[in-house]
Amino acid sequence: MTTNPQDLQDVFDFIEENQDEYIAWLQLLCRQPSVAAQNRGMQEAAALVQQLTEAIGARTELVPTSGFPVVYGEIDSGERRTLSFYNHYDVQPEDPLEEWDRDPFSAEIAEGRIWARGVADNKGNLIARLAAVHAYQQVRGRLPLNVKFIFEGEEEIGSPNLHEFVASHPDKVQADACLWEAGYKDVNNRIQVALGVKGMLYVHLSVEAANTDIHSAYAAIVPSAAWRLVQALNTLKDQDERVLIPGFYDTVADPDEAEKKLLDSMPFDETGFLKGLDIPAFVRGATGNEVKERLIFQPTCNICGITTGYQGPGSKTVLPAKASAKLDFRLVPDQNPDEILKLLRSHLDEQGFQDVNIERGHGSMPAKTDVHDPIVKTVLDGVPRIYGHEAVVHRMTPGTGPMYILCQSQGIPSVQVGVGHHASQNHAPNENIYVEDFVSGIKMIAHILDEFPRQVV
Amino acid sequence: MTTNPQDLQDVFDFIEENQDEYIAWLQLLCRQPSVAAQNRGMQEAAALVQQLTEAIGARTELVPTSGFPVVYGEIDSGERRTLSFYNHYDVQPEDPLEEWDRDPFSAEIAEGRIWARGVADNKGNLIARLAAVHAYQQVRGRLPLNVKFIFEGEEEIGSPNLHEFVASHPDKVQADACLWEAGYKDVNNRIQVALGVKGMLYVHLSVEAANTDIHSAYAAIVPSAAWRLVQALNTLKDQDERVLIPGFYDTVADPDEAEKKLLDSMPFDETGFLKGLDIPAFVRGATGNEVKERLIFQPTCNICGITTGYQGPGSKTVLPAKASAKLDFRLVPDQNPDEILKLLRSHLDEQGFQDVNIERGHGSMPAKTDVHDPIVKTVLDGVPRIYGHEAVVHRMTPGTGPMYILCQSQGIPSVQVGVGHHASQNHAPNENIYVEDFVSGIKMIAHILDEFPRQVV
Repeated sequence: MTTNPQDLQDVFDFIEENQDEYIAWLQLLCRQPSVAAQNRGMQEAAALVQQLTEAIGARTELVPTSGFPVVYGEIDSGERRTLSFYNHYDVQPEDPLEEWDRDPFSAEIAEGRIWARGVADNKGNLIARLAAVHAYQQVRGRLPLNVKFIFEGEEEIGSPNLHEFVASHPDKVQADACLWEAGYKDVNNRIQVALGVKGMLYVHLSVEAANTDIHSAYAAIVPSAAWRLVQALNTLKDQDERVLIPGFYDTVADPDEAEKKLLDSMPFDETGFLKGLDIPAFVRGATGNEVKERLIFQPTCNICGITTGYQGPGSKTVLPAKASAKLDFRLVPDQNPDEILKLLRSHLDEQGFQDVNIERGHGSMPAKTDVHDPIVKTVLDGVPRIYGHEAVVHRMTPGTGPMYILCQSQGIPSVQVGVGHHASQNHAPNENIYVEDFVSGIKMIAHILDEFPRQVV
Repeated sequence: MTTNPQDLQDVFDFIEENQDEYIAWLQLLCRQPSVAAQNRGMQEAAALVQQLTEAIGARTELVPTSGFPVVYGEIDSGERRTLSFYNHYDVQPEDPLEEWDRDPFSAEIAEGRIWARGVADNKGNLIARLAAVHAYQQVRGRLPLNVKFIFEGEEEIGSPNLHEFVASHPDKVQADACLWEAGYKDVNNRIQVALGVKGMLYVHLSVEAANTDIHSAYAAIVPSAAWRLVQALNTLKDQDERVLIPGFYDTVADPDEAEKKLLDSMPFDETGFLKGLDIPAFVRGATGNEVKERLIFQPTCNICGITTGYQGPGSKTVLPAKASAKLDFRLVPDQNPDEILKLLRSHLDEQGFQDVNIERGHGSMPAKTDVHDPIVKTVLDGVPRIYGHEAVVHRMTPGTGPMYILCQSQGIPSVQVGVGHHASQNHAPNENIYVEDFVSGIKMIAHILDEFPRQVV
């Protein structure tokens, strides 16, 4: 049963009339730095999120974990259906600061956009969800379903304690569906809806070749940590982007026909994307469906950063004793981060790099939701209603999240839709969302609140 | 004709009686940071060096260059022979600061040593030479030869403007011999005398793969500057330490028999050296004369530093748009830095790395002095006189300096001897010299001042 679009006009009108207030909530949250990787502003951010959640009428709780707390909120309307919202209040570090055109924590509005670290990932979505619940209740008095808010503070550092939250609070986690953290418009301004996420293994590789840096005159005889690291890294991937770790692809399933079909209908503006980044071509010179298939279905081995030796201005002639690199592997079903870690260690050992130390960072399993689930239909029906076009469906997002832990491992279907756009610059300088997308995103959530209880399982 | 060691006892006594004053001069200079690479304290350091040089009775001049000035001083005694001293008042950057046990600019005295950035390289030597000239004049009234002081401020950044000084001031450069900047005691406490230097080519490699860093989820399709740099670096040298740039070794001459013989007499405490750095072995598992031959006669390709992406605490999932590395090649006769630069560019192009940009840093030619020159005999005679043992002669130092520009290209022989020791930590944290070596070094210079004019050409 599909709702008449007019049915929610009252709520949509209210959202538009009150958009300045919702934007103010978002700016307030964005102006509070909350960099989990640097333990910066986390307590203040958690308190602020709790306060905002309490203010829309939810019963809230700051649930402690071994790391930063989960801000939990719920509104029990006594209804049969329960929808949970997963978001996070932590953000990525803002560096390199010099590449920002504005203070990353000013949340300035310019050119129709709000600019701030975390505005797209993930504060804009977090606030949009609170705003929708607020608006719906203001107009209709009460919600037609129960809602739960699970706002964690460690997503950007790999959600190391979310499994602890899930294990200790099964009652807070349980829901009929979960609306996952984010989503965006592509280069053609079409809303992307994602039904899964890639997994991840993050590692810190390091080499300590001597107990001190020395004058580079000794390079003729003293082993170099920098060279060891470069040589070790070079064994991990070839120039054709093939990961060289034996066994890495063993559990990777090729997309099935239905999944490949989704690629056909997935618009992807190659020219626009290339131009946006000012790059001449995609890796391997890929074009057409190969680009999309790589993005959605291929695992990766990415270097997030390398540091060794002297990096300041001018020159210094030094032989570095230490070198390290941060890498992330994006995983696809059925790759398991623990298995990949073992394969990586074996590979380095076999290549003679026993001296390369591996420190495990966060790991998460890839996850997929059944395309026939009611929450999927609810979201897909909402897109034409709010945006006037059909959604573009992604089998998985190229990005990662702890969806498996919170949802699939608990039998909960989950779908992503949100307020970002293709140039939102998540994790990068000049992160931003359009004010218009923020307001539409609130309406989209209002639609889901209204529609999900009507869907027949 | 060899001098009776007793002849200079008056000068040596004066040096010992006044050593506290000379140490105070050295501390004063070490407490003045002078990091050319960062343009830090350079003006103040030049003024201080000029003042100290003036104070020993030299006519001084701050000779401007396109970079930092040369502090020039001369004492014209109306004698036939002229000896020049080449030193530098600039120092390497002091980072990593956290690895220093003391403030690098405190010039603290502890455990019989003076600890400071630049105390070994090269302020200890600069002051020792001023002190010797001062002492000799105080005791003997006048010098038996003319001296020239050429104290440059850009050695640690590759002496980019020394050729300009040489070209514009041939009168200031001309001398019968030049005492080069430094020298040290080896692990057996034997004085090393060097008759040449390796050359150098410093380059900054950089890759800009996109116009902005992006979320690493896109690693499946977007080229990575970090990977490009790693792959390009990996083509430069193999794991057997062989530089892979075609033509790199074409002009490298094997050491002749006399040169190889010098290696036999060069003590090298492999165990002590390995233990000092806490390394299991030298590169290629080299031992014995292979280690020494590599150090003195082999060119190198060293990574001084690499920087790309996120390097802060914790993790960040980013695909870096930019990556860069600083490299130094140590060159041996007859490698020419300009030629090596061309070979490097051709090699990267041929390997498909046209996208790797090369910015040329400093370059200097390798240099060798005739072993039969009077200045060589003067210095070698002085070692048993001051230190009680024969000098260990190095055909070239593993390190680099602009010896060719200032000396060999002008027909001036040059020799290195100085106040450092094998663990002086040049260019590294906890740089230091022994107080005792500083005082002996002053005596050594006094010997040279006295003896060089007596040597028959």
